[in-house]
Amino acid sequence: MTNTDAPSTSNGTSTSAQDAAAQKQPVRRAPLGIDTINKRVIKSEYAVRGEIVQLAQKIAKEVESGQHNHPFDKVVWCNIGNPQILGQKPITYFRQVLALCECPQLLSHPNIRELFPEDVIARAQLLNKQIPGGLGAYSESAGALIIRQLVADAIAKRDGYPADPENIYMTDGASPAVHYMMDLLLREPTDAMMVPIPQYPLYSATLTLYGGTLAPYELDEGAGWGLDVEHLRQQLAKARREGLCVRAMVVINPGNPTGQCLSYQNMRDVLSFCRDEQLVLIADEVYQANIYVGNKEFSSFKKVACAMGLEDQVPLVSLHSISKGFIGECGRRGGYMEVTGFPEAVKDQILKLASINLCPNLSGQICCALMMNPPQPGEASYELYRKEKSDILGSLKRRAELLVGALNRLEGVSCNAAEGALYAFPRVTLPEAAVAAAKKLGKQPDWLYCKELLEATGIVVVPGSGFGQADGTFHFRTTFLPSEEDIGRVVEALAAFHAAFLKRHGGLTPAAIAASAAAANGTHAGQ
Amino acid sequence: MTNTDAPSTSNGTSTSAQDAAAQKQPVRRAPLGIDTINKRVIKSEYAVRGEIVQLAQKIAKEVESGQHNHPFDKVVWCNIGNPQILGQKPITYFRQVLALCECPQLLSHPNIRELFPEDVIARAQLLNKQIPGGLGAYSESAGALIIRQLVADAIAKRDGYPADPENIYMTDGASPAVHYMMDLLLREPTDAMMVPIPQYPLYSATLTLYGGTLAPYELDEGAGWGLDVEHLRQQLAKARREGLCVRAMVVINPGNPTGQCLSYQNMRDVLSFCRDEQLVLIADEVYQANIYVGNKEFSSFKKVACAMGLEDQVPLVSLHSISKGFIGECGRRGGYMEVTGFPEAVKDQILKLASINLCPNLSGQICCALMMNPPQPGEASYELYRKEKSDILGSLKRRAELLVGALNRLEGVSCNAAEGALYAFPRVTLPEAAVAAAKKLGKQPDWLYCKELLEATGIVVVPGSGFGQADGTFHFRTTFLPSEEDIGRVVEALAAFHAAFLKRHGGLTPAAIAASAAAANGTHAGQ
Repeated sequence: MTNTDAPSTSNGTSTSAQDAAAQKQPVRRAPLGIDTINKRVIKSEYAVRGEIVQLAQKIAKEVESGQHNHPFDKVVWCNIGNPQILGQKPITYFRQVLALCECPQLLSHPNIRELFPEDVIARAQLLNKQIPGGLGAYSESAGALIIRQLVADAIAKRDGYPADPENIYMTDGASPAVHYMMDLLLREPTDAMMVPIPQYPLYSATLTLYGGTLAPYELDEGAGWGLDVEHLRQQLAKARREGLCVRAMVVINPGNPTGQCLSYQNMRDVLSFCRDEQLVLIADEVYQANIYVGNKEFSSFKKVACAMGLEDQVPLVSLHSISKGFIGECGRRGGYMEVTGFPEAVKDQILKLASINLCPNLSGQICCALMMNPPQPGEASYELYRKEKSDILGSLKRRAELLVGALNRLEGVSCNAAEGALYAFPRVTLPEAAVAAAKKLGKQPDWLYCKELLEATGIVVVPGSGFGQADGTFHFRTTFLPSEEDIGRVVEALAAFHAAFLKRHGGLTPAAIAASAAAANGTHAGQ
Repeated sequence: MTNTDAPSTSNGTSTSAQDAAAQKQPVRRAPLGIDTINKRVIKSEYAVRGEIVQLAQKIAKEVESGQHNHPFDKVVWCNIGNPQILGQKPITYFRQVLALCECPQLLSHPNIRELFPEDVIARAQLLNKQIPGGLGAYSESAGALIIRQLVADAIAKRDGYPADPENIYMTDGASPAVHYMMDLLLREPTDAMMVPIPQYPLYSATLTLYGGTLAPYELDEGAGWGLDVEHLRQQLAKARREGLCVRAMVVINPGNPTGQCLSYQNMRDVLSFCRDEQLVLIADEVYQANIYVGNKEFSSFKKVACAMGLEDQVPLVSLHSISKGFIGECGRRGGYMEVTGFPEAVKDQILKLASINLCPNLSGQICCALMMNPPQPGEASYELYRKEKSDILGSLKRRAELLVGALNRLEGVSCNAAEGALYAFPRVTLPEAAVAAAKKLGKQPDWLYCKELLEATGIVVVPGSGFGQADGTFHFRTTFLPSEEDIGRVVEALAAFHAAFLKRHGGLTPAAIAASAAAANGTHAGQ
């Protein structure tokens, strides 16, 4: 198909002198085809919505049609943190305020107080008044000033250090913030970012798209997916020996897909490392409200940087989103980034990038401001808000424990506790015959496992190879988001499938079982 | 600041063998600064939110504070098509349906029928039922199936040719569609797109960002901003002589900033040209509902392609948005692209790009489906919808005529009629002294005009140089969106400023006045 350098064929109608001249030279044409598009697009991979998910969508359509031979009557979407599709109810307060922002005329309806609590009405009145043009007008490209002010105030309250609305950029979910950083920092293929392995594949996908290089650092599965700073130094040195110019380091805390929470000391070490090595620190903190273990609590990198007096020395981008937490307003696409320690001239360029997209959607902006400023004790909505929040978080904790416990009872499977986030990332020892069968298909062994799991049970999970994993190990990522009514059945179906998979592929050798048990001991020691 | 190739300084804590080895080699470091970021970001320009707008934001803050010396009490935002910020009311039906999608629990309230019409309730019920997880869940990356189905059905009804939901990709406004096409088609700096001059600067900005080249074709101001296909051929040949590989052609119809509507024959010629020259046709049709002249009507390129039997031969991307029309739901960021004539394998890559952003926001998706499927005669909301629509469009037409008429009465100014869209793009003959004064500042003469207009009147318009214009001509783009109460004052202030500007900068020479009159005759002849 490619004939980029082939001579032009005459179109038969043009006779101008210019055309005649042009036709004497080789003319560069590239008719549209898979071999004439940007190779970086083809190379980029996003497993969370990859091949397994596309197969699942096809199966879901067949199941919905009622005419199918699948041995289940429902596809269970555990591939992505998308709580409301699995039945999680939205937080009432947010939706009530948003409904009144949609229809401000309701505010003057005589019966409005029968329908909406007092604090909801007051909050909607404030937002309608302070957002120029309301929900239907483009805001400033960084977000409406009142929204950025509300977010900054809440950050200051969370961290105990000041936050400036001029450092806040509202975004459509957290993803655009990652795009901005890639666009800004990657100048040529040898520009690199340090990214954890395993990682959320948004990072690998955008690094490929923007033409940069991924410089990996491994989280230690045997130490509860811990981040070892000496290993960071080694990996940076390695990347530099390879001629890479490392621009930034990505930290996901709590981790995705791994769920670990960094210790305060670990965060201090990372900040010192970034200062010493002149790296931008991209702190993906979208799971900050999802911590399920009593002895850990979330600290933002911004707070730790301020406590160390490093806020002006380490360029830091902190990402947050309304898609996760107990809120799960994924479909609305709301989020923000707080940018500190950046030169003003560079911030101007971020603003320009934002302006090319005009502005983030206002519905997401408003929901983000509400997330950061929920109802307070004494306000009409507080009690319901508190109950909804604690019900969802309590249930997530129970489901995480149930799922991780069940995974650890499967032969050849070990799984760290999910300290935070919405996922378990079990390590699965696979039979040699399964590894060989996958190889024959040109696929990763964990892809084969996930595909057979989908076909046998309707459960959609993501192969560990999509996130990166230590050589010779296999994992999958599953959310623990199915409802409490459903998750028992999910766990049973998974266990039955797992036993059948092992049997079908010849089972595990005693050596493999011993190695898996040793890995599991390491895993549990790290918890 | 750049010390990309400077040796690493030891961080004083690492002693590993690898680090020692690394420090013997030159280490590539690039501390964050304006000189170490991606040059393409710095080079890209987006005038609609550029320097004049930033100055206006500063002035607006001063005016709002009450403590200022500006000779006006309000900044009037004519730089961007953002109707609701200037007081245009949203369409009631859309907002009512959206409020019920936000708060589905309202649907079961006993008094719901006192608050919302029957058809609004029915539409919200349908959407709540058919969108998996509702407004708060990620949808499929191309958009929820029911939404794409509603959009496709409406396109089929509009054009009289079938439309397939598998060809519809919902987007956050129309801009992401442009990003997708740039990302897909631009492989290297010699890959180019043909873009009209003047153009909407999203195209020049994204071409720069994605590292491609703009191959211009000029619209003919003297012929009502007409598009001449022979000129297209010449410009393509010229681009090819320069070694460019032209991948696509952008057409904005109705035009932005120019407001012209293409004739059916013109569209046929463009499609034949794209077929002959194997170009992707990017049809920016976001102003399709904004046509103000009785003898023109909108035809989509998709319809014309189907009528010519070219739908499989010309890769065509048609963009639409909820931000324009009479709807003006800019802040919601909703839109779609319909992709026809693309190989399936390339469409898979578009879907992958969309999946990296997870999904477009659901509030924008829903509003887009409603825009394409408004209330029908006989439905409860129809009469109000019809009235709101015709009031807004009638008022826009009156305001367009008032503004263009007033501009044409100014000395040295000529302006084509705004057949469509939301803008006038007058040509302004500037005094030689003003041109020289701008040159001294290192600025474009029309920038100086717009800056002084802002400082004297508070009216924010965009210099023509941000859109591209024929050499030696100067323009500005202004919306005609100020309300009917305000637009008279805007026109008066503009006229007073213009006279003062000419006087302050030494006035126009008789030769300049004669040339301007000749241009104006050409302009009016072209209408």
